[in-house]
Amino acid sequence: MDNAKYEAMLKVAITEARIGLAEGGIPIGAAMFDRDGKLLASGRNRRVQQDDPSIHGETDAFRRAGRQRSYRDITMVTTLAPCWYCTGLIRQFGIRTVVVGESRTFTGGIDSLRELGVTVVDLDSEICRDLLAQFIAAKPEVWNEDIGVDA
Amino acid sequence: MDNAKYEAMLKVAITEARIGLAEGGIPIGAAMFDRDGKLLASGRNRRVQQDDPSIHGETDAFRRAGRQRSYRDITMVTTLAPCWYCTGLIRQFGIRTVVVGESRTFTGGIDSLRELGVTVVDLDSEICRDLLAQFIAAKPEVWNEDIGVDA
Repeated sequence: MDNAKYEAMLKVAITEARIGLAEGGIPIGAAMFDRDGKLLASGRNRRVQQDDPSIHGETDAFRRAGRQRSYRDITMVTTLAPCWYCTGLIRQFGIRTVVVGESRTFTGGIDSLRELGVTVVDLDSEICRDLLAQFIAAKPEVWNEDIGVDA
Repeated sequence: MDNAKYEAMLKVAITEARIGLAEGGIPIGAAMFDRDGKLLASGRNRRVQQDDPSIHGETDAFRRAGRQRSYRDITMVTTLAPCWYCTGLIRQFGIRTVVVGESRTFTGGIDSLRELGVTVVDLDSEICRDLLAQFIAAKPEVWNEDIGVDA
């Protein structure tokens, strides 16, 4: 698949990230697409909004997509490289294509996914980097909490 | 800490697993305890009950424990060795002690946790094995769905 297709998918995740930022939350969004490129579900980090540390962008999209018998042909798109928690989700459920908006702010587990044979497309999006940088500069303690960095 | 203490913690997770089974769900439970051994939260797999694939025992307990500034001194107890999704959760948030009821049915990521320096105590509980074996025999397709094994 060409990058234009992936960029279009990323826009859905970016929209979620922006909604999250407007809500006062951590601006990370995600979306899942089926084999035909149809949107299954999108989601965003809701740690702040719902006081729920388990809701990362990827896990929110995953939950909203509902039960699936197979993830083999599903593409997970996220504005930021998945942390180990979300990397584990991708690994356990056998998602084979992951599109990340950027991995400069946070690398997460993308190298390990590549080693496992997962296709990881990194779009190195300035929009994604700027959105998150804005939040981290304003609320570094919430960002650190979200990635499990001790105070 | 001696195993009697861990066995007592495991009982909380087993109670959750039994509730899950009675609800028609996958009987896997978990519980989180603070440094003084005080229960923070318990949870159970709710894939079937809530049609939510994101709720494993560990992620349910994690969510119910609410936002924590540090997981360094928290013990995660689960009736079954954590899958890669829950292994990733433990890794990302820096939980350093994990007690598993058993790892024969499913090994998950406990070896990788040990390599990362996490203390993993395996109580090899027959109760935990029997609870899950009962479910898997009755509904193998739901079990496979829960661990991402394609049909």
